[in-house]
Amino acid sequence: MIPTHIEHIGIAVNNLDESIRFYENVFGLKCYKVEVITDQKVKTAFFMVGQTKIELLESTDPEGPVGKFISNRGEGIHHLAFAVNDLEQSLKLAGEKGVKLIDKEPRTGADNLNIAFLHPKSTAGVLIELCEPKADKNQ
Amino acid sequence: MIPTHIEHIGIAVNNLDESIRFYENVFGLKCYKVEVITDQKVKTAFFMVGQTKIELLESTDPEGPVGKFISNRGEGIHHLAFAVNDLEQSLKLAGEKGVKLIDKEPRTGADNLNIAFLHPKSTAGVLIELCEPKADKNQ
Repeated sequence: MIPTHIEHIGIAVNNLDESIRFYENVFGLKCYKVEVITDQKVKTAFFMVGQTKIELLESTDPEGPVGKFISNRGEGIHHLAFAVNDLEQSLKLAGEKGVKLIDKEPRTGADNLNIAFLHPKSTAGVLIELCEPKADKNQ
Repeated sequence: MIPTHIEHIGIAVNNLDESIRFYENVFGLKCYKVEVITDQKVKTAFFMVGQTKIELLESTDPEGPVGKFISNRGEGIHHLAFAVNDLEQSLKLAGEKGVKLIDKEPRTGADNLNIAFLHPKSTAGVLIELCEPKADKNQ
């Protein structure tokens, strides 16, 4: 596996609307999508910066992963997502190299991606996500 | 100011050599430079992922910014750097929009960049760096 690029950077925020305004007003970026990810208990907002997305994450449940992150550490950068060409194979390879996997199989993520998280205990404290675009169902 | 891309993502690590091996071994990335930044009290290692660099940061002094970060929060993502076309103008604009500036003027950073940090208190907890390539002295 060699990641092709950084697909997105996830940032945990207390108030999505306020943070959208901040990134639009200060950096001149444009939010192109807001999406609720029910199973991750987050509401997300996306901005494109070159080939990488900024993904703002507001928790919809204090017991969800982003709610717990903010409760423990406050707002801030939550995770880093590498784009890979073959997610299933990349995940298998990471496991074989001794990386602890949060997701042993790819699952559906935000913004039409298949995703899987690696455990920060085996990545020097960084929550790393691997992802690839979902196959187009019409093809 | 509209950032052209994410120039790099800074990651604080306890042991640079171990983390270089991890990113090379697990992700197949290649470390292209190791550099000591004396005034930031860090030793850095760089990898290219698409148009963005991963910048690993090992503290050379517990009282330096990365030493304090690790002491407070442990290893993890330390900062996010946006590439801008006119750093001085972008910094002025951010200040005018009410962003607290750590660096009021650009200064020299790693990997031949001019850089300036915005204060995480006015960026929803994210330490954001603005940067642009240094002008070529031979031109």
